[in-house]
Amino acid sequence: MASLNIPESKKNRVVILGGGFGGLTLAKKLSSREFQVVLVDKHNYHTFQPLLYQVATAGLEPDSIAYPLRKIFHKKQEFYFRVAEAKAVDEEKSELVTDRGNLRYDHLVLAMGSTTNFFGNENVERYAMPMKSLPEALNLRSLILQNFEASLLTDDLKERERLMNYVIVGGGPTGVELAGAIAELKTHVLPEDYPDLDFRRMTIHLLEASPRLLNGMSDKSGDQAVKGLEKLGVQVWTDTMVKDYDGETVITEDRKLPASTLIWAAGVKGNQLDGIPDASKERGRILVDEQCRIMGMKSVYAIGDVALMKQDSHPNGHPMVAPVAVQQGKLLAANLRRTIKGGELKTFSYFNKGSMATIGRNKAVVDVAGLHFKGFIAWLMWMFLHLMELVGFRNRIIALVNWMSSYFSYDKGIRLIIRPFSREERKVEDVHADVPSES
Amino acid sequence: MASLNIPESKKNRVVILGGGFGGLTLAKKLSSREFQVVLVDKHNYHTFQPLLYQVATAGLEPDSIAYPLRKIFHKKQEFYFRVAEAKAVDEEKSELVTDRGNLRYDHLVLAMGSTTNFFGNENVERYAMPMKSLPEALNLRSLILQNFEASLLTDDLKERERLMNYVIVGGGPTGVELAGAIAELKTHVLPEDYPDLDFRRMTIHLLEASPRLLNGMSDKSGDQAVKGLEKLGVQVWTDTMVKDYDGETVITEDRKLPASTLIWAAGVKGNQLDGIPDASKERGRILVDEQCRIMGMKSVYAIGDVALMKQDSHPNGHPMVAPVAVQQGKLLAANLRRTIKGGELKTFSYFNKGSMATIGRNKAVVDVAGLHFKGFIAWLMWMFLHLMELVGFRNRIIALVNWMSSYFSYDKGIRLIIRPFSREERKVEDVHADVPSES
Repeated sequence: MASLNIPESKKNRVVILGGGFGGLTLAKKLSSREFQVVLVDKHNYHTFQPLLYQVATAGLEPDSIAYPLRKIFHKKQEFYFRVAEAKAVDEEKSELVTDRGNLRYDHLVLAMGSTTNFFGNENVERYAMPMKSLPEALNLRSLILQNFEASLLTDDLKERERLMNYVIVGGGPTGVELAGAIAELKTHVLPEDYPDLDFRRMTIHLLEASPRLLNGMSDKSGDQAVKGLEKLGVQVWTDTMVKDYDGETVITEDRKLPASTLIWAAGVKGNQLDGIPDASKERGRILVDEQCRIMGMKSVYAIGDVALMKQDSHPNGHPMVAPVAVQQGKLLAANLRRTIKGGELKTFSYFNKGSMATIGRNKAVVDVAGLHFKGFIAWLMWMFLHLMELVGFRNRIIALVNWMSSYFSYDKGIRLIIRPFSREERKVEDVHADVPSES
Repeated sequence: MASLNIPESKKNRVVILGGGFGGLTLAKKLSSREFQVVLVDKHNYHTFQPLLYQVATAGLEPDSIAYPLRKIFHKKQEFYFRVAEAKAVDEEKSELVTDRGNLRYDHLVLAMGSTTNFFGNENVERYAMPMKSLPEALNLRSLILQNFEASLLTDDLKERERLMNYVIVGGGPTGVELAGAIAELKTHVLPEDYPDLDFRRMTIHLLEASPRLLNGMSDKSGDQAVKGLEKLGVQVWTDTMVKDYDGETVITEDRKLPASTLIWAAGVKGNQLDGIPDASKERGRILVDEQCRIMGMKSVYAIGDVALMKQDSHPNGHPMVAPVAVQQGKLLAANLRRTIKGGELKTFSYFNKGSMATIGRNKAVVDVAGLHFKGFIAWLMWMFLHLMELVGFRNRIIALVNWMSSYFSYDKGIRLIIRPFSREERKVEDVHADVPSES
């Protein structure tokens, strides 16, 4: 079988699977004086996942939150990027098996991230909309707009209501931000676009299985998210789990919600790859030691969402969020250097920089260094930090122009159905879009 | 069958099929004091087609050149927009037949534009890439990027060359601008992205059946286009027609060009609709009188690319370009008013505002009012006019930011393969994407 056409080098070869936050940080930190670096991803771009919800709600185009992976490494020597679908690790041969050929490694780092977890509910998986990748976010955008076009054309009031209702499952930052953004569409944008529709009929439900929203954040933040969302007209249901969904009615333990759109933001699980010993897996993630080495494997590491590292400070592992991936990427770069240059390996220590979520216009919550911020100031902090975290000057300017335009016009500019969504298409193309698979 | 849910009004109802340059101008000019206006399009957006080539070559995202049709009419009373696929005119019942129901009209205006004309060459239609709609432009962008990723992975030098070659057919503005943009990718962007590839192996061919480029423009413009493109490394072949293409080799009368990508910009034809008398059709267009009334029909009009109006000044009809559509839209708005208010109908008179084409960085040609401009000044004129013609302030700013960023960085920011292209997918979704069909 063909190789991936990577020239052999005298340097140790580090193969990184996945160009998300963890893989990208690691690749940037590795020096080409010491290593030959090969990054493999099924997409040719890095996705800034925290803003996917804005792509889904017509606020941003993909180019603001995606960045071409090749461009990041223009100036680097001995760096190679390949678009390929990873299939397995062949530990015996020290090779990563992909659909485009096998790739020998000296060090292999699994940074393939996570995908939507439907917790085995097949009906939900069939009918609900996930939002973990750009194609999925674009599908959701198309579907939202298609729903309103279809509402206009039906005389069946029940059907119209179903088309205008949204149920979002999962009260984490993604669910909260999405519910807020859809509520703002309802308030500011859609009534002007569809003067014939009665938007009092449109309801937005946010369902959360636990007793509160924003579980990773302070109680204050959770409370303010509920208040803020309810003010925007969102119906928040805590202690509520989805039992079933047939594409028309969401069934929970004590109620039935008619809705042709169910957005699933209730959980993620690590992406899978063959060749990892079963003993090294737990709850869909890969067990690593405190140096990110996969238990029971040699020269194979895992970082970010896919890695499960139990530490005294975090006996159940770290949260599946970008900062953990970034910090593990940095640690591993230093440790790989020590592995070949000598020196004691460093142990991971998670520094929680705080967390934030935006609820709507002028409304956000921020917990940082024991302090809590809310309202306009929190919203400015949220905007500033997200802008700074976007990769590339152009991306920042484009996002800023879009945000300023939306802010002053009370409008979202990108209400375009470029690729109409159909459930059939999703089944083929986009479910598990984040699992390394053929591009 | 369901109707399109348009309430009846005392006013005359004008149904406009197509939200392109002609339909949009007409709709904007009609006053809601005199008419009820219903615009029907299979897309929910207007496409600024002259910049499609920039979407295809990673310079702009769709949102810069598309504008939500609903947004244009926010302030208008008695205006309705429906996303639907038109099937036929039922002249007896005075109804437009669509996939979402029938629509009664007092006046029906066909403004459904044109689609790619393959002149009956089925192999070319099967394997070539058209570029007349946003989905088609996005497909082309994906394919161009996929080609280079695939080039990296093959050891077969012939296959690699084929993947790196581009044949563009059609020496009009679209073909010229596309050839120039791909040549600039070759010069400034791709070598940095793909340092492993030898870009001397990449060739770009522009084929034109007639003896010169830019046939609608002055001889000077045609000559300068050839010179400019050749300077960028494009091989220009005039008097050259494509005889066949199998997806791997383009066959002309006297040569074979290996290329896995053939872009077809060689011609357009009017979109079709059932119910038009055969006697009123000629060369795929609909014959109209000098007031845009379709010959042999009552209260049915055609404007823009789909209309064929023979005048003494233009015995073979007008060119299929945006200004004709815009001017016919304006004329018809005035004539429809006269039809109900009384007064003599006006006759169409085409005012040629001049034409322009960009060749590359700092290079364009402009013919206007008997004057000819070239080089940097022409390029500035081209940019300014295209910016001004974009609908919406946000769109202009976003396009400007992208152009300035590209200009100063010698880069194109949007090298993202969001939806990988496959020929199978195109067959289903995108061929004839401009024919009103299901959205």
